[in-house]
Amino acid sequence: MHRIFQSAGVVTGSPDVGFLDADVRVRDGVIVEVGPALEPGGAEVVHVPGWLAPGFVQTHIHLVQTLFRGLADDLLLLDWLRTRIWPLEAAHDHDSTYWSARLGLTELLLGGTTSFLDMATVRHTDAVFQACEEAGVRAFVGRAMMDRPNEAGLSQSTEESLQGACDEADRFHGQGRLRYAFAPRFVPSCSSELLEQVAVEARKRGCLIHTHASENADEVALVRELTGRDNVVHLHERGLSGPDVCLAHCIHLTDEEEQLLADTGTRLLHCPSSNLKLGSGLARIPELIERGVHVSIGADGAPCNNRLDMFTEMRLAALIQKPRLGPTVMPAAQVLGLATRNGAEALGLEAGVIEPGKVADFIVLSPDEVNVLPSPDPASAIVYAMTPSSVREVWIGGERMVHEGRVGGWDPEETRAGVRQAIERVARRAGL
Amino acid sequence: MHRIFQSAGVVTGSPDVGFLDADVRVRDGVIVEVGPALEPGGAEVVHVPGWLAPGFVQTHIHLVQTLFRGLADDLLLLDWLRTRIWPLEAAHDHDSTYWSARLGLTELLLGGTTSFLDMATVRHTDAVFQACEEAGVRAFVGRAMMDRPNEAGLSQSTEESLQGACDEADRFHGQGRLRYAFAPRFVPSCSSELLEQVAVEARKRGCLIHTHASENADEVALVRELTGRDNVVHLHERGLSGPDVCLAHCIHLTDEEEQLLADTGTRLLHCPSSNLKLGSGLARIPELIERGVHVSIGADGAPCNNRLDMFTEMRLAALIQKPRLGPTVMPAAQVLGLATRNGAEALGLEAGVIEPGKVADFIVLSPDEVNVLPSPDPASAIVYAMTPSSVREVWIGGERMVHEGRVGGWDPEETRAGVRQAIERVARRAGL
Repeated sequence: MHRIFQSAGVVTGSPDVGFLDADVRVRDGVIVEVGPALEPGGAEVVHVPGWLAPGFVQTHIHLVQTLFRGLADDLLLLDWLRTRIWPLEAAHDHDSTYWSARLGLTELLLGGTTSFLDMATVRHTDAVFQACEEAGVRAFVGRAMMDRPNEAGLSQSTEESLQGACDEADRFHGQGRLRYAFAPRFVPSCSSELLEQVAVEARKRGCLIHTHASENADEVALVRELTGRDNVVHLHERGLSGPDVCLAHCIHLTDEEEQLLADTGTRLLHCPSSNLKLGSGLARIPELIERGVHVSIGADGAPCNNRLDMFTEMRLAALIQKPRLGPTVMPAAQVLGLATRNGAEALGLEAGVIEPGKVADFIVLSPDEVNVLPSPDPASAIVYAMTPSSVREVWIGGERMVHEGRVGGWDPEETRAGVRQAIERVARRAGL
Repeated sequence: MHRIFQSAGVVTGSPDVGFLDADVRVRDGVIVEVGPALEPGGAEVVHVPGWLAPGFVQTHIHLVQTLFRGLADDLLLLDWLRTRIWPLEAAHDHDSTYWSARLGLTELLLGGTTSFLDMATVRHTDAVFQACEEAGVRAFVGRAMMDRPNEAGLSQSTEESLQGACDEADRFHGQGRLRYAFAPRFVPSCSSELLEQVAVEARKRGCLIHTHASENADEVALVRELTGRDNVVHLHERGLSGPDVCLAHCIHLTDEEEQLLADTGTRLLHCPSSNLKLGSGLARIPELIERGVHVSIGADGAPCNNRLDMFTEMRLAALIQKPRLGPTVMPAAQVLGLATRNGAEALGLEAGVIEPGKVADFIVLSPDEVNVLPSPDPASAIVYAMTPSSVREVWIGGERMVHEGRVGGWDPEETRAGVRQAIERVARRAGL
């Protein structure tokens, strides 16, 4: 496969290169050349209707929760988990998990997300992988590991959880665009033994480790009560720190914990909508970046967002810091980098930038819509003005995945019908 | 004209009624009946593709600035005004003002806004009215009145400003759906004499008064220096308080000023995106509402937002208060009321609710898109999940104004070309 992409301009996503009037040559799914007026040399020439930009990389998603959108609004984190999310997750069957993932994947792809890190629930992780495979997206997925009992009955024994995760990793990790990520839910749900074993088994397989930390003040207090340690310190002592460890939220950190994240290269996954909607707080992102912490962005799950849309998250990541630190912090170009390049780095992907050697994961953005014009600065247009409806096409590994509002081979009517039947069944079973 | 609207459900916007499975009967642009399975009785039956909801009412907009989107990012308010916005406004000609307004009106209508309060610039207010009349929207517009000199040369003598505004009011106020609103820019731009005369002339004509107050800490300090008074107190002493006075922002208020707004029924126009992006701060909206202050919502101008989209503003109005006051404050149904019913009250319109006696200003929202499903609660779906692309149709006074992504009689290609030529000319003239 040899293609040359011609566009209205290339948003390279590289801080040194910026915006280029250039063509992009792709061979076998990988970018091999970026430059003005490339010679076809036998390539198929593809004209795309707008700017070519790197696909978004979301580093914290819960596809199994998409079905619960609108069922858990205006609640505090621990109530939200105990009275809604856990009972609903416990009520999932294989089929409802598949439709939840398919709904979320459709929204992610239509909005320009080409890769993501996802936490599933305790059971039916195979249904999430099935939907991801059908969608053709780069997906890092793992079962939510929970071995401390809770009211919803959503837990497993340490052995069952670990064995299940290892079996899933051995089955799915490296299958096409699928990767496994070990996903202990968060410290209050996980024994120290489980966390320590996750570190061993994930590293044995070259898998990422994905968890939540210090999202909420009550959670932080609970972790201190359970372990006698601050959250990030406890995880670090169990072996869960380093560039292969991805921690969602990290809002309520001590000075020691902030430094620990920087020193170990542990990845921070920032979820601005979710943090606001659950009233969790504001992560100190500009200060953490200044300190050397690696930051990327994710939409989290539909019940705490209620979108899965990187445009919303980028805009919020920029805006929410400005009243505290002034309007010049988190300028548009920096935020765009968190949503593309930094996401790819967190997942270990050669992606997120349009330059030779990276995979050809592109989105095509229309700069001509009335809600974007006159758009003199592409980074400003993308971060502050555009919405998912600005995405015209999505290409992954040089293949077109979204075209004229359709995702992959899925019939949208079938998706709607599957979703409606599934949520009716799950909500009834959960008693909601 | 006699029509019955049949839909997938009616989001009445009334806190007591909520969501109804009902038809809506409209005669001569006014709702006359809401109920299940209405008898046609000679009416034309209109099937709309989704939920019927009240059109949004935005109470603070600057159409003349739409052309400056992306030209003034990541700056502090007073720098933003002095180095970008005022020089650009001063460089406007009649034609560029028209294209700026037409661009903004297209975005407003496509996003479901049916009525709004707008502040123009010092000259060419007639070009804004021209575009509003063509669009068919309910528009309250007034020249920005500024009689204190500034570096950009964007001011007039007290007499010239006042006479110009009175002439415009006499020409446009009450023409079809157009209304005039006297718009002294803000205290630092306006002499006390001008403010006092505005109170007299506006009330003589039954026009609203529209200004900015206490958006920014430096502005508040400047007002104290210039007048020896706090902002809202100074305006009140000049006669500018009461239900016909609309104050944008109101972030930095003393206790006395908060009480003054409540006691006088002065309208507060809340602009969450703009307040974040300019680093201005967070208005204490839940506390102000509790105190009895009347609050509605506007997107402000494109250079400080950079959208003109009520969905973005509603979602932010809800989310930004939650880290401070907890996730249960500003629930979705309350915020939807600020964006519809309260906006209509601020402008003195019989609109913003679908009930007999109100004008037939409707939007049609699709609950079936993947970014909204499964949407069990309409208010949650509208405030947290939907975007302008959820708007299928817009009806004003019972007439369809938006259909299949087109606004009124405007050719979108002509809009784009007009905008591009205008911004090139204006930016060159402003030296940007």
